[in-house]
Order: sequence, then C-alpha cells, then structure tokens
Amino acid sequence: MTRAELRINENRFWNNLMELGKIGGNDGVSRVSFSQADMEGRYWFKSKMENAGLETHIDGVGNVFGDISLPHSKKLLVGSHLDTVPNGGMFDGALGVIAALECAQTIKENGINIKHGIQIAAFSNEEGTQEGRGLFGSRCFAEGISEDEQKLLEPVLKKAGLSGFEAQTFKKFNPSEYMCYLELHIEQGGVLDNTKQHIGIVEGIVCIHNIDVIFKGISNHAGTTPMVQRNDALLGAAALILETPKIVKDHGSSATVGTCGMIKVEPNARNVIPGVVEVGIEVRDLKPAVADKVLDIIKLKAHKIADSQNLKVDFSSVSRNPSAQMNDGLQITIRDAADSLGLKHRFMPSGASHDAAIFAKYLPTAMIFVPSKNGISHSPDEWTERKDCINGANVLLKTLLRLCNV
Amino acid sequence: MTRAELRINENRFWNNLMELGKIGGNDGVSRVSFSQADMEGRYWFKSKMENAGLETHIDGVGNVFGDISLPHSKKLLVGSHLDTVPNGGMFDGALGVIAALECAQTIKENGINIKHGIQIAAFSNEEGTQEGRGLFGSRCFAEGISEDEQKLLEPVLKKAGLSGFEAQTFKKFNPSEYMCYLELHIEQGGVLDNTKQHIGIVEGIVCIHNIDVIFKGISNHAGTTPMVQRNDALLGAAALILETPKIVKDHGSSATVGTCGMIKVEPNARNVIPGVVEVGIEVRDLKPAVADKVLDIIKLKAHKIADSQNLKVDFSSVSRNPSAQMNDGLQITIRDAADSLGLKHRFMPSGASHDAAIFAKYLPTAMIFVPSKNGISHSPDEWTERKDCINGANVLLKTLLRLCNV
Repeated sequence: MTRAELRINENRFWNNLMELGKIGGNDGVSRVSFSQADMEGRYWFKSKMENAGLETHIDGVGNVFGDISLPHSKKLLVGSHLDTVPNGGMFDGALGVIAALECAQTIKENGINIKHGIQIAAFSNEEGTQEGRGLFGSRCFAEGISEDEQKLLEPVLKKAGLSGFEAQTFKKFNPSEYMCYLELHIEQGGVLDNTKQHIGIVEGIVCIHNIDVIFKGISNHAGTTPMVQRNDALLGAAALILETPKIVKDHGSSATVGTCGMIKVEPNARNVIPGVVEVGIEVRDLKPAVADKVLDIIKLKAHKIADSQNLKVDFSSVSRNPSAQMNDGLQITIRDAADSLGLKHRFMPSGASHDAAIFAKYLPTAMIFVPSKNGISHSPDEWTERKDCINGANVLLKTLLRLCNV
Repeated sequence: MTRAELRINENRFWNNLMELGKIGGNDGVSRVSFSQADMEGRYWFKSKMENAGLETHIDGVGNVFGDISLPHSKKLLVGSHLDTVPNGGMFDGALGVIAALECAQTIKENGINIKHGIQIAAFSNEEGTQEGRGLFGSRCFAEGISEDEQKLLEPVLKKAGLSGFEAQTFKKFNPSEYMCYLELHIEQGGVLDNTKQHIGIVEGIVCIHNIDVIFKGISNHAGTTPMVQRNDALLGAAALILETPKIVKDHGSSATVGTCGMIKVEPNARNVIPGVVEVGIEVRDLKPAVADKVLDIIKLKAHKIADSQNLKVDFSSVSRNPSAQMNDGLQITIRDAADSLGLKHRFMPSGASHDAAIFAKYLPTAMIFVPSKNGISHSPDEWTERKDCINGANVLLKTLLRLCNV
C-alpha cells in the first residue's frame, strides 16, 4: 500500500465510537467527569490502546495516555476528552480520542516508518462539573492548577480511585519534548452542516468576554403607577437586548457572536414594575480587541438607553477567557491533507473552548472540525454522520503522516 | 358648633395613626395577617373603639367591627384593613380604619343627630399571604369563601386565636341592612402628589387581566452558533416588552396601564442562546373591554414579532380580576364634601384593589384617596403628610354627615 492509499480502518473506528457511546448511554450519553461511567470509559479506552500495542498510563487526575515512543525525537500530542455533559452526545470529545487511537493503530499495524513519537491523550473533565471548572485534565497536565483548586478536587479524584495531586504523575508536561498538539472535534455549530462542507480548519479558539449590565429604575405598583410616571428597568434591558445583535453585526467581524443569555429581574412579579434588571452579555471573537470594541459599543448604547429612559446603568466584568491562535503552518498541513482526500473545507473559528486552548499556549496547535448535524451538541440529539467521522479521522491520519515526514 | 364647622380631632386622629404604626413597626410596618403583630393591632383597635363608646365585636375570621346602632335604619359601612405587607407602611389600610373610628367618635362626642347607623370595620388579610389570597376578611363577611379556602385557612385562624369558620359570626352580611360602603385609602400611586391635589374621588377599581406570552426558539451554544443561524427567544420577548407601553398608549384609555413584570428564560445561562422565554403581562383599566382590546393587540404584535424572527409564540390566560364601579351618587357627595372644605380634587381610577371591590358587588360603594408621597407604598418609605391624612378624614366625615342627612 502506498502512503497515498493509507486510510483508517473504518469499521473498527466506527465500532469503537459506538461501543464507547454505550458507556453511560441512556437518554444521550452521561459520562460526567469522575463518575462511575466516566471512569469506566477511561479504563475501556486504556485497554483498547493496550490492545493496539501502545504504551499506556493514567495519571493522578485521570488523564489517559498511550504512546508510540521514538527515543530522541519530539512527540506529536494528539487528543481530546472522554467526559461528557449530563445527557450529552456520543461525539463531543469521544470522536477526537477514538480517532487518535485509530490513527496510531493504523500507523502501527501498517508498519509505517515515522520520524516522531506519537502520544495519544484523553484528558479528564474537559466539560467542567459542579465541583470544578473545565479543561481540568489538560490544565493539570500542561501547567498545574492552584492549591485552592487542588483542595477542591482532591476528594473527587480520590473517590474516583485516582491517586490525585500527591502522585508523581501530576504536571509532567515538558513542551520541549513535543512538536505540536492536534485535536479532531465535532464543530458543535451549524456552519459546516449548512454549507455542506466536510472539514473545518480551525483558525483559533475565540475569546469569551462576559459582562453584566445592570439597569436600575424604580420598583413600583403596576396598578397605581401611571405609564408616564414609570422608571421600568426592564424596558431599558429589553432595548439593549434588541440592540446587541445589531451592534455585533455592525462592529464585529464576520465571526463575532454576542449573546444575552441570562436575565435577572427584581422583583420579577407580575404586578410590580421591575426596579432592577441584570443582563448577562457575552461576546466572542478570535481577536480580543474586536470583542472589547463590541462590548464598548454595547456599554455606550446602554448609557444612551438609560439616559433616554431615566434609568441608571452599571456594568461589572464577569470573566475574560483569552483566545487561542491555531498555528498557521499546521492549518496549511491540514488543508493539504483534506485536499489530498478530495474533501471540501473551510477555515473557521472555534466558538467553543477545547483542550487545544491550553496547549496553544505552549505548543504549535491545530484543530480539525467535522459537521454537527443541525449544529446541535451537548444534547442526546448530537449527531455526526459516519462518513463525516471517517473523513475527520482520515484527515487527522494524513496530517500526522505529513508531520512525521512519511 | 354648626354642622359646617364640625371637624375631626386632628391630634387624636394623628396620634392614633402613629400609635398603631408602632405595632409591628421596625423597618417599616409588618403586620402580616394573623401574625402576632396583626392580632395585637386588631385588639388595640377594638379597645380604641370601645373607649370611644362603640359596640364592638370581632368575628371568626378576624374582622373587627364597631357600631353606632340605630334601630330600624340602614347602616353606613365604613372601613378598610389593618394588616400590612411585610415591611410595608403605616398608612395603607390603617388610615381608612383610624379615620372611620375618628369620624364615628367625632359624631358621637358632638352629639350629632344621625339618621343612619354607622358600622366601622377593619377587615382581615386584605393584602394576602402565602397561605391565602387577599381581600379575605371582606370576602368572608360579604359572600363567604369556598370550602377549599376554608380548609386552608382554618388552622391559620385557630393559631391566631380566632374561632374560624365554625363560629356563628362567619358571613353575617345582609346587604339590605346597609345603605353603602365607604373607604378612605392612600392612593398608592403618584397622581395626586404630582398634580398637587388633595383628594381623589375614585371612579372605579380597575380590572386586572393577566396573560403569559411564551416565545419558543431554539436553545443553542452561544459560541458555536453564528448570529444568522439563531432562533433566540429572548429577542422576541424583548421586542414585545418594548412594544407594550406603546400599545397601551395608542390603544388604551388615559387610565390604562400595562406592565411586563415577570420574565422567565430557559435555560437562563450566559453561554446558551435562550430557547424559551415566558413574559407575564398584565393590563388594567376601568373597562374590561379596553383591557381586552389592549391585550388583543399585544397578542397580534407578538405573532408578528414571532413571524419576523422565526419563533413560535403561545399565550396562556393567567387570571382576570373584574373591575368594580364606584357609585355615581356617592362620588358626587364626596366631591361636594371636598368642595365644602376647599380641597382640590380629581376623579380617578384605583389601579390597586381594595375591600371596596368586594362591597361594590352588593352595595353602593365609594372610595376617597389622599396623596402618597412620591407614589410609594408597600414600603418603609410609604408616607402621607399629616395634613393630607386630616383632609381625607374630614372629607370622610363630611360625606358621612351628608349621607346621614345631618
């Protein structure tokens, strides 16, 4: 078989994905981090990697690794996560992990001569739980976490049968040993599905800037207060909510998204004019400066609305998640891999965060997207067609081979 | 002293009002129905009436009565309530009750020859509590309540030391024994305060029509869903909230008020596009047909918004409180009484409900309003100036005297 003809084993790959989907599967898939189903999934994956002839280990925080070692060479790190949200789907995270294994196994069983080692990784708690925030396994592995977070999570890890932070396996990452990080993932949006494209080449993971806008009026009796004597905070909030998509369109990039997803009304009673209304607004873009500009204009508009309606307005910055730039050279390599397979592709941002966001700080990093049917994820309705999963895995394989100078 | 010169005893009246305000007073006044403070207030009032020489009794549901009896004549029923909302004010309800006593006492101690008996009433649980809905005492007295409501309230009454529904005092009202019902109350809105008028002559108590408007879009990832692919239910709700005051202005009467006070967003998370948003809208007007017309146009607008934003919309009728017409002849008598005192007055609707709404079904009924400072009520900041309280009580006195053919 020539290098150009090499493909993954479609049936084995798909069967593995379906088999994993049954672990925690019931009204979607629930492998919430460090739950019994999650741990079962991790050990299932570890044994799959062992069977494929990889050198495996699991670290203190639940990250599962499988290596094709090659002494004196830099490694390619390829991974994603195995945990899910409650009642999530069987592709989010799982696809990237199963595809990484399939690529390594295909390379190994075909006796391909690679010039770099390959390390497969299934990171733990990417989704976040009530006990702690997400990207947990990749953060622990790549950069360590605060003592406060360790204290919070130590009992959770111990309960799951893991050795926790005391173990020597915590924070073993040395960037100089690695060539790059690669991750295949479902898009979780509807862009590829809508445009009938096979592959998304991720340009970067967007930043997420969150603010709260608080309108203050005067809470009063809904029956006895004439319309002209009202200071209704909800009217200010409603005006700003309506303006937000317009501001995003006029002042953002084509990739900018802005969402008012959260609203809190005081006192939120049918017969009381709202006195205080808080609106949570988040703006995402590849460029933090663009997100900031959009938020600045939203704030300006909020001031104007408040002035015109005789309300007060305050802002509080809730959080700022930085963006992560994907490596240009790796994007070209992925594009060439997709071209070699005759797949239609587009360059696009990732609107959701991924383990790749952590590794982009330390390594050349890239992501491959495949279509999510109707753009749905984190739901039992999450679906990616078999053919699309296979396309993604083959693009990952071709990318690895190109990077390994085969 | 001539009839024209007769006035209430200002100091006694004001002192009584202030003394009552101390019962349950702490960060406003809290005499929540059937609480210890509420019962203390009732017994305090009963003893005040006894001292004034009235024949008093308290019925099984906590209504306190004081009579100047006159056999073979119809009675004038004059009252309001003694209970408050938690952390309410010292005028809402209390003013009308204390003024009724003051008028009876003034008539009695000045030996005024009246041609009708006068019955003072302090009704229980006008405000409503967690256990049961408001206008409780007046409903029990005037028309009785359902067995379900009785079962719910019986233990509350017993706990407060009242005899409850078993007692013979429940539902003793015979409309043919009464001439009319009169109630002095604070306005609870800002109309009189804003227009510097002394007295409001209530034309009627508005109806309250409540509906829920439910916009349905598609809940989706706020990061991965491009702006053009969204079906954001909150955008539909915000558009309708903004339209509501315009529709009220264009299609209501000058007295119509419409309020969006309640909003429920699903899932109400910063990073999720709202899939379902419920908005509670209430419209009040003296004429139910006007309120219905406004709501019909709000529904029409909701359909148009939903169509233009690719959302679905549903409606559910939550409740319809009927309006209550005040008696025209009594309104004229009150106007004449106010004129005789040189007080500026206006005819106006009551946007809030009152015990008068119950009696209007059975008797000629009228209400006198005095200004609420800044239109605030149900708050520790509730305030009515001493002079305004005295004006109201004197208008009530003059009205009683005119009705008693003095």
